[in-house]
Amino acid sequence: MLAVAGATAAWAQAPLPSWNDGAAKSAIVAFVHAVSDPRSRDFVAPADRIAVFDNDGTLWAEQPLYFQFQFMLDQVKAAAPKHPEWQQDAAFQALVKQDKAALEKLGQKPLLELLGVANSGMTVGEYDTTIRNWLATARHPKFNRPYTDLTYLPMRELLDYLRANGFKTFIVSGGSSEFMRPWAEKAYGIPPEQIVGSQQEVKFEMKDGRPVLTREAKFAFIDDGPGKPVGIYRHLGKRPIAAFGNSDGDFQMLQVTTAGEGRRMGLIVHHDDEQREFAYDRQSHIGKLDKGLDAAPANHWIVVSMKKDWRKIFAFEK
Amino acid sequence: MLAVAGATAAWAQAPLPSWNDGAAKSAIVAFVHAVSDPRSRDFVAPADRIAVFDNDGTLWAEQPLYFQFQFMLDQVKAAAPKHPEWQQDAAFQALVKQDKAALEKLGQKPLLELLGVANSGMTVGEYDTTIRNWLATARHPKFNRPYTDLTYLPMRELLDYLRANGFKTFIVSGGSSEFMRPWAEKAYGIPPEQIVGSQQEVKFEMKDGRPVLTREAKFAFIDDGPGKPVGIYRHLGKRPIAAFGNSDGDFQMLQVTTAGEGRRMGLIVHHDDEQREFAYDRQSHIGKLDKGLDAAPANHWIVVSMKKDWRKIFAFEK
Repeated sequence: MLAVAGATAAWAQAPLPSWNDGAAKSAIVAFVHAVSDPRSRDFVAPADRIAVFDNDGTLWAEQPLYFQFQFMLDQVKAAAPKHPEWQQDAAFQALVKQDKAALEKLGQKPLLELLGVANSGMTVGEYDTTIRNWLATARHPKFNRPYTDLTYLPMRELLDYLRANGFKTFIVSGGSSEFMRPWAEKAYGIPPEQIVGSQQEVKFEMKDGRPVLTREAKFAFIDDGPGKPVGIYRHLGKRPIAAFGNSDGDFQMLQVTTAGEGRRMGLIVHHDDEQREFAYDRQSHIGKLDKGLDAAPANHWIVVSMKKDWRKIFAFEK
Repeated sequence: MLAVAGATAAWAQAPLPSWNDGAAKSAIVAFVHAVSDPRSRDFVAPADRIAVFDNDGTLWAEQPLYFQFQFMLDQVKAAAPKHPEWQQDAAFQALVKQDKAALEKLGQKPLLELLGVANSGMTVGEYDTTIRNWLATARHPKFNRPYTDLTYLPMRELLDYLRANGFKTFIVSGGSSEFMRPWAEKAYGIPPEQIVGSQQEVKFEMKDGRPVLTREAKFAFIDDGPGKPVGIYRHLGKRPIAAFGNSDGDFQMLQVTTAGEGRRMGLIVHHDDEQREFAYDRQSHIGKLDKGLDAAPANHWIVVSMKKDWRKIFAFEK
């Protein structure tokens, strides 16, 4: 019994077990101590200990295609018979042909718009069911596992570690809020009300005598790039003290977070492990990381090598 | 010492001290017990114990004019020299003449738009300072006190009582989020990230080498009437189990909340105390309550009489 209690206590003293010892881990631990120790000159009150995390490529994988786009493909295929006009649509053609080069070139916006049309008219409850059903059955092409198995263990430990030190953790993603909300609480410990994402228009109406919200065929807000600080301002109304991303879509979020007064942390997850995950950065259209790599040193943003800094990437690894 | 401890314990046993005993108080206490007692058949897990509160007229006063509009008047006056076109604008004329009838007829939208133009170009930090300065100096015309003194003591006790029973409390207001955020945490215990409101457009830009958010001259979202359930969906992604309002602007929020499965609570604060506060309902343009009064019985919404149900309205009352 005593031995067990000792082991538990030792584990509590050693955070981030899936991180290798090194500069990245040390910098994280030093930052957390500095802002949460009341005797520290960099102490931050718990109410202001806000950390924001990108999702795709930061908390879970995003290759060979953003998982929400894999989901879209099925949604759009199911809706195609009702939309003959899509036969002329470049985004639709790229999707059904799984033309990766074309999809990458198109970027996120026309694809989100196509998805918007595909599921317009659904109530938000019906849409939620569609997402849950897809997540329960779809499998990742490389790992042949449910997409929700593709979360990064070191980042889940980091989320736990921050919360254990009084942080409130938020997701700020280019993906739709409703695509993350059904599973993010279980996967990351982040409840639906702490998820900021792109927003499809929804409309209140009475349907068969009951009040419902129905999805409309356009986006109200794209929470990506310069949209991320806007989404943070709208949702949180305060500046985070720590931001975690992996691509140039997180650049402005990192900038705004680390431009604040007092001690701050910016961190970029660098995908450099072809074997255990994927390797990509400056040339990739999905999760492109170019400006961020150049700007990291001057801004004191930590660049995490998945290959060197992470002992384990996925929980299912041997 | 024993006597003091006893009094404290007794107080802890008697929630809502500023509420008179009666049907409204009993219904609230019964609801809170039913959803928070693990042995209850109506038990709700803490994560789903979400309560949403309108602000103007529900948590603080709103007469003779929404307090944000009083603030607007000063903002718009200050900006007027730069906007000669306003001389032809009906909303501007109504504001500077303090033409209450015209303002009431115009409704919230053109006034919010005018405010949008008045403070466009400001950074969000500059705007926040403007709000804080105004709140520190402005006085309510009837009570001759800072506007932040005009919060309702019984509702503050209700917020505390809900949180003590595991609820997470949110504001869902037609006013702008940023107008409430500087003071709502102190006044209500509600942090900035739990405030949902109307949203003026803001834009990310670099200014003198620093990343800033600048206000633009239009609104992105009006969180009122049918907009309230939309704001709740976007921000929370789940259906509240309790909703508190005072006007027909809260009607759809009450509908959506109480249409959910399981035990629910809808509550309407009825302004019927001319002497201690204001008396208005069906005929008022500010805080109009007409549909809500008619629909309350069939929907089992509690209608609170400020006159009969509240022992004290404001903390400063003798």
